[in-house]
Amino acid sequence: KINGERLWESLMEMARIGPGVAGGNNRQTLTDEDAEGRALFQSWCEQAGCAMGLDQMGNMFAMRQGTDPDALPVYVGSHLDTQPTGGKYDGVLGVLGGLEIIRSLNDLGIKTRHPIVVTNWTNEEGTRYAPAMLSSGVFAGVHTQDWAYEREDAKGLKFGSELERIGWKGEEEVGARKMHAFFELHIEQGPILEAEGKQIGVVTHGQGLSWTQVTITGKDSHTGSTPMPMRKNAGLGMARVLELVDEIAWSHAPHAVGAAGHIDVYPNSRNVIPGKVVFTVDFRSPELAVIEDMENRLKAGGSEICKDMGLEIAFEKVGGFDPVKFDEDCVAAVRGAAERLGYSHRDLISGAGHDACWINKVAPTAMVMCPCVDGLSHNEAEEISPEWAAAGANVLFHAVVETAQI
Amino acid sequence: KINGERLWESLMEMARIGPGVAGGNNRQTLTDEDAEGRALFQSWCEQAGCAMGLDQMGNMFAMRQGTDPDALPVYVGSHLDTQPTGGKYDGVLGVLGGLEIIRSLNDLGIKTRHPIVVTNWTNEEGTRYAPAMLSSGVFAGVHTQDWAYEREDAKGLKFGSELERIGWKGEEEVGARKMHAFFELHIEQGPILEAEGKQIGVVTHGQGLSWTQVTITGKDSHTGSTPMPMRKNAGLGMARVLELVDEIAWSHAPHAVGAAGHIDVYPNSRNVIPGKVVFTVDFRSPELAVIEDMENRLKAGGSEICKDMGLEIAFEKVGGFDPVKFDEDCVAAVRGAAERLGYSHRDLISGAGHDACWINKVAPTAMVMCPCVDGLSHNEAEEISPEWAAAGANVLFHAVVETAQI
Ligand SMILES: NC(=O)NCCC(=O)O
Ligand SMILES: NC(=O)NCCC(=O)O
Repeated sequence: KINGERLWESLMEMARIGPGVAGGNNRQTLTDEDAEGRALFQSWCEQAGCAMGLDQMGNMFAMRQGTDPDALPVYVGSHLDTQPTGGKYDGVLGVLGGLEIIRSLNDLGIKTRHPIVVTNWTNEEGTRYAPAMLSSGVFAGVHTQDWAYEREDAKGLKFGSELERIGWKGEEEVGARKMHAFFELHIEQGPILEAEGKQIGVVTHGQGLSWTQVTITGKDSHTGSTPMPMRKNAGLGMARVLELVDEIAWSHAPHAVGAAGHIDVYPNSRNVIPGKVVFTVDFRSPELAVIEDMENRLKAGGSEICKDMGLEIAFEKVGGFDPVKFDEDCVAAVRGAAERLGYSHRDLISGAGHDACWINKVAPTAMVMCPCVDGLSHNEAEEISPEWAAAGANVLFHAVVETAQI
Repeated sequence: KINGERLWESLMEMARIGPGVAGGNNRQTLTDEDAEGRALFQSWCEQAGCAMGLDQMGNMFAMRQGTDPDALPVYVGSHLDTQPTGGKYDGVLGVLGGLEIIRSLNDLGIKTRHPIVVTNWTNEEGTRYAPAMLSSGVFAGVHTQDWAYEREDAKGLKFGSELERIGWKGEEEVGARKMHAFFELHIEQGPILEAEGKQIGVVTHGQGLSWTQVTITGKDSHTGSTPMPMRKNAGLGMARVLELVDEIAWSHAPHAVGAAGHIDVYPNSRNVIPGKVVFTVDFRSPELAVIEDMENRLKAGGSEICKDMGLEIAFEKVGGFDPVKFDEDCVAAVRGAAERLGYSHRDLISGAGHDACWINKVAPTAMVMCPCVDGLSHNEAEEISPEWAAAGANVLFHAVVETAQI
């Protein structure tokens, strides 16, 4: 078994970097805080006897040697970046859980046939730079590196130049590594495990995601002196499209969700009717046909709403992935480990996107989940218990070590 | 008659300070650009032989002496600050139109019995610091100066310290000046004069305004893994309240308008259901009872919407004024001047708020309006013709000089 106390202490120590305003974290990708978190992780890996690799997307790879020089490594990991008002565990548990495996193998003097590599994938969250899971996506060949470098944050700073600025751009070609398998431990970020009193989620599938950036253009004008019939109120158009998004998602519930988290209003002045609103609609479902239906209805319905209001509307897909089915052998390794360790468990479909969803395209992949309080995530109040974290890391440990011996 | 070419040249020269991104201006209150615009205005006033007074709110008063040492001055003016994406004429025409009166009196060698004072009121627009017409409001005794100094912009910078920083905080007590009368020339900012082919609007009333800042609080959570029934989506609550605002305003149309120009969503991340939205509802009507009805229905209806959605809602009044009836003698002076000069004219209710609305509380006040293209204002594309500007300034000239001889 892994050392749950040590894992928890490391989680708490990492959480000191980039503290939030309400007990959580703001360690967004490619900020100085991200750099500081990476340096701490690297120092821990080196103390555990690992050599650190760094690729041109800033993905980090800490390797513990195996006994067979010809055996491909088993990879394990997640991400250290957080939401602007994020929790202490989302992503971090998967990286430090991976490190804890290595520390435990060292403690126990266990050698594995395959090397084990702990990864930290750059920009998983997708807040500062859309899309989410950007660098595991480049690794898996879904995006080109040049395209990724050109992504811009809200201030117009490019991903490529910010990666260079924080000093974490490596030399290694992205995606050159071959994997025997990839495992990711993550908090559920949803309510099912806690509600059913299960310790472990065996993730069989991931639901698909579609991010559509919507731009509605009206005409800035005076809120006082513009008569009601002459208004082209892009803010009101946005309100009606948000209502439509909710309707569309509910029409497929419980097999779909939908909302807009990002909304920017221009010029955002109390006495100016908004001339432009830009917002991103997030639709998800485990079924590709449902996602496509939701996208189509958003476009058709949004266009109709705006036509009636004299507004222009434009749609741009800024992120997304198809629903994912994880590797049956890797999933069986996770389920078998939970079984052997005596943890209560159930199969799960991941509601959130994860680096594992992209890596699944290039390597046999599976995920382990542990509960989180009230299913709450992407919130500074995100919480888990040390016992939940340890159970998840134990399952990860057993699934990884078993796979690394084959 | 005034010199229309000179007036136009001055308007164009002022518009070079704080240029916008689309041909208009961004010369928001208490910015470096505001300071630069003030300095230019002061230098012009001094060249015209006026002494400049400056009060503790940064209000500027350029005085041309009269012949009777006991006669109170006739005041004329408006504001030099602009919206973030504002036009070249909103406010500026009233200040430089006032200056043009003085230049013309100098040219013609006319002495007036009463002194004439041209004013630039600080922070009319209300974008950077709510409420609008803040400093004319302090002058008229509607707000205290201490309260005004504590107003904060979006970055938390206070009005008082920013006024000091730009170097335009004077010594003079605010509101100590007594006025014989006040006249303000302004573009209509609405479509009526242009549509009816009228050169001059004789403003008899101003409609009242209510700004209610609404804060809706839900719960930040993950857009992917939070099931639809568990969501507390403050963004969706905001959408429904915006629809309500529109419904309420239409129910009183054409005697009311309503919209929200300012909307901030938190944490504003694509994959976080908004936990908080803050926005400002702008309701206006020439009838006080209608404004009160709209405020009440917003509170009742907004509370009901949010209760049903498990959201909290809070309302704070952040600005407003009651409908205004201008002074009959001053209005008659404006109408008589338009008549004598042979301009087509009609009576108007101002749709926007103006410094004149507050000054009307402490001095006999009236306004002159000229048309603007498509009624468009609070937009960089705001446009007027040199002829419209000259006609407005001529009416102002005659109304002011007539009043200054009595
Ligand atoms: N796990 C997680 O929150 N990933 C961010 C990408 C997403 O929105 O699903
Ligand atoms: N005239 C003008 O645009 N004033 C700003 C205050 C308002 O919103 O009416």
